[in-house]
Amino acid sequence: MTEPVTDLNADLGESFGAWKLGDDRALMQVITSANVACGFHAGDPLTLRQTCAMAAASGVTIGAQVSYRDLAGFGRRDMDVPADELAAEVLYQIAALDGIARTEGSRVSYVKPHGALYHRVRKDYAQAEALVEAIRAYDPALPLLTQASGHASEVAAGAGLRVVAEAFADRGYAADGSLVPRGQAGALRTDPGEVAGRAVTMVTQGVVTAQDGTAVPVQARSLCVHGDTPGAVALATAVRRALEQAGVRLAPFA
Amino acid sequence: MTEPVTDLNADLGESFGAWKLGDDRALMQVITSANVACGFHAGDPLTLRQTCAMAAASGVTIGAQVSYRDLAGFGRRDMDVPADELAAEVLYQIAALDGIARTEGSRVSYVKPHGALYHRVRKDYAQAEALVEAIRAYDPALPLLTQASGHASEVAAGAGLRVVAEAFADRGYAADGSLVPRGQAGALRTDPGEVAGRAVTMVTQGVVTAQDGTAVPVQARSLCVHGDTPGAVALATAVRRALEQAGVRLAPFA
Amino acid sequence: MTEPVTDLNADLGESFGAWKLGDDRALMQVITSANVACGFHAGDPLTLRQTCAMAAASGVTIGAQVSYRDLAGFGRRDMDVPADELAAEVLYQIAALDGIARTEGSRVSYVKPHGALYHRVRKDYAQAEALVEAIRAYDPALPLLTQASGHASEVAAGAGLRVVAEAFADRGYAADGSLVPRGQAGALRTDPGEVAGRAVTMVTQGVVTAQDGTAVPVQARSLCVHGDTPGAVALATAVRRALEQAGVRLAPFA
Amino acid sequence: MTEPVTDLNADLGESFGAWKLGDDRALMQVITSANVACGFHAGDPLTLRQTCAMAAASGVTIGAQVSYRDLAGFGRRDMDVPADELAAEVLYQIAALDGIARTEGSRVSYVKPHGALYHRVRKDYAQAEALVEAIRAYDPALPLLTQASGHASEVAAGAGLRVVAEAFADRGYAADGSLVPRGQAGALRTDPGEVAGRAVTMVTQGVVTAQDGTAVPVQARSLCVHGDTPGAVALATAVRRALEQAGVRLAPFA
Repeated sequence: MTEPVTDLNADLGESFGAWKLGDDRALMQVITSANVACGFHAGDPLTLRQTCAMAAASGVTIGAQVSYRDLAGFGRRDMDVPADELAAEVLYQIAALDGIARTEGSRVSYVKPHGALYHRVRKDYAQAEALVEAIRAYDPALPLLTQASGHASEVAAGAGLRVVAEAFADRGYAADGSLVPRGQAGALRTDPGEVAGRAVTMVTQGVVTAQDGTAVPVQARSLCVHGDTPGAVALATAVRRALEQAGVRLAPFA
Repeated sequence: MTEPVTDLNADLGESFGAWKLGDDRALMQVITSANVACGFHAGDPLTLRQTCAMAAASGVTIGAQVSYRDLAGFGRRDMDVPADELAAEVLYQIAALDGIARTEGSRVSYVKPHGALYHRVRKDYAQAEALVEAIRAYDPALPLLTQASGHASEVAAGAGLRVVAEAFADRGYAADGSLVPRGQAGALRTDPGEVAGRAVTMVTQGVVTAQDGTAVPVQARSLCVHGDTPGAVALATAVRRALEQAGVRLAPFA
Repeated sequence: MTEPVTDLNADLGESFGAWKLGDDRALMQVITSANVACGFHAGDPLTLRQTCAMAAASGVTIGAQVSYRDLAGFGRRDMDVPADELAAEVLYQIAALDGIARTEGSRVSYVKPHGALYHRVRKDYAQAEALVEAIRAYDPALPLLTQASGHASEVAAGAGLRVVAEAFADRGYAADGSLVPRGQAGALRTDPGEVAGRAVTMVTQGVVTAQDGTAVPVQARSLCVHGDTPGAVALATAVRRALEQAGVRLAPFA
Repeated sequence: MTEPVTDLNADLGESFGAWKLGDDRALMQVITSANVACGFHAGDPLTLRQTCAMAAASGVTIGAQVSYRDLAGFGRRDMDVPADELAAEVLYQIAALDGIARTEGSRVSYVKPHGALYHRVRKDYAQAEALVEAIRAYDPALPLLTQASGHASEVAAGAGLRVVAEAFADRGYAADGSLVPRGQAGALRTDPGEVAGRAVTMVTQGVVTAQDGTAVPVQARSLCVHGDTPGAVALATAVRRALEQAGVRLAPFA
């Protein structure tokens, strides 16, 4: 019998100049992997450097949270970026963050696309291939963190990249395993007790209860917790405690 | 008796999206070191990637041409950037370009500040220290390419960095060894024959004829040629041919 | 019998800082309406001011060439901008250019979307409505310049805006009146004589010869000529001369 | 005997995309003039539109808070912008905000430079002249809001602009009437009672107690209150209440 294990990942380093976002210092004590912004949707260089230093000091693994170039839209606006431009943009971001992380005694250990890019590469082969090409060009040993299904996973696996699946304890699931779209009833769970319970069930039993009550299988090596909502740190802390009490080991995947 | 040797450096990779600047392909056949833009004053990621690939294919050494974050001003506007922000910005730029260069089979081999930053660090200790701190943090083996005198040289040398001096065959010099300010008579030389002759004298005799006719000593391991002016390639080519005919070996310094 | 009349419009003011694009000074002598960039895909404020001054001095009508916020992509990348954000962005651009134009003795007299936004609003109701809402909010007397068909035309007309149709003398047409997509054979015509002949036929007979040889009706009050390609000025000049020789009066529509 | 009167101004509209700054809704109920960001240091177009709508609904006068183009530095970094570029940038910002304000039933009624530009134009004639040229070009009836002394005031007055002086109830003053520099002891006052008392004395007696205890004359038609610090709204509210209780009428100057 193997000990259950999971990773907790969250988005960090998303401040920009005078604008602050999220309680990175507190969240860093809860998570095991930090998806650090790379400057294209958020994250000025000093913020990235301070975030990497904090992650290194806290023993938190660093991932490159790559995005479309869209500060005004926080990377949440789908963009038709040609494949060669997108690949170069992703490469630029990974390299910039990795160099900064290395000067702070750590390094980029995985890549997670952000916002609109995250969703686009699950259904757009050209952009998925651009993303994967950039990761392979930089370091073919870097895993891709994303949802289990979708083009990005396929393309990455086909290209020999390690794909790490993540799930969302605070999101509603449909019976087919997809997420309930934001804006619909039940899309977002905010009760710490409920979310923590879902997290434990996901990790120890590999299932989540869907909107219609059915048990849906979920295979995930990492749980994503959100960092920029009110109560985010409290929710993440509740998840972590419940996992630890259930005998789940918390460890980065990379 | 040692064979005279010099490096020819020029700014490249300064296009941005739809806007093209300079004939990089032609210039790459003339120079030995390319100061490649890093995205802060010029250079979108795809341009950087293509420029690095071209440099690698041409055997041209790549340097990181770091700048203030100022696309609208092309990095030519002096900025009061706090030291910790500036250091992080420089680090970000070096890292981004180095990662791209490595995927194209080369790497960043030196750092040269661009535009207003180039001039500011020659007289501002705080910014000079920020620049040097960033280079050392990334890789203390990276030389700094700049004019022989000034705070940046001092601070870099004091911190154990190799400082490589450059001179300008197409710029007028005053009797004290300083450049004639742009806008003044004689600041810019455009006659290929004259500029080529000055280049040969600088490298083989270590002197340049100043505005007042005196011979001024110039110690430089690299000559800077400009890439974005009309006739730039022709001028650089004339300089290279004259140097070769004078028995000067052209070789990168890094 | 009415005298045939047309307008010639072209994109201007698309330089940005150190990067120059197009020969605005020469083109200004040929066209009757200038689609001036507003800073979101191109056009720094000083360029806009100089372009508006030139237009005013040349008696050329000024239109606001509004775009997605995308300097790196020159506004050519389709973007999922929420309607309220897009409307505010369009409003901001029209207002900025109009204020500048007024200080130079002219004003914004129409609006033409640029690049990806131009194509998107022809098939996306939400973005078309955002565009139209912004124009109406700023000044309901401002016409919208676009192709004859598409959602933008419908929505604008429905909202009481004047819609001015444009056609392209240098683009290939399919038998259904649509443009041959760029990249396909015959998409772009570059022979000045042929393009000029097509322009005359479009204006005087209201038809264009499609790829398959059929005569397709074209109703256009303005012809768009391109400004940023090699030979652009020569092509535009040939078009203007041929129109004048055919007795067509050249006059802005606004 | 005239009734004492003052204006309360504060910086608003300084959010940007996903990043929120300040409690604009609450502050709008306290102030009489809103210095609204124009997009160069802060303020995306939708934020500007919403802020102008809120100001119009609250009867608060709108001013254009113009800045260097520096989102990463929030306009706080001094920049050597050439005069013609700076004038065009200021003009662009005033025009953009004024157009938005007009669609929301109000208009730009004055101009206040932001951050580094505010301080630079007090001691740099070239930039002061650029600022003033832009305001005059747009609308010579727009007042300039700034501190009583300095080049900007002189140049503006000399050019026929109305100059409105402001003072700072929460800042320490030296005996010569200058502000105690930030970072020094007593530079910033945060006690609501004390600040409110200083505000009343400034308006009703035209004096402020300097660091050394002397009474320094202060002539100001407007008091600036800060919006982006913790307790900002409470402080501003205390100031307003104290002024009202002292019989001071609160009214915009424009």
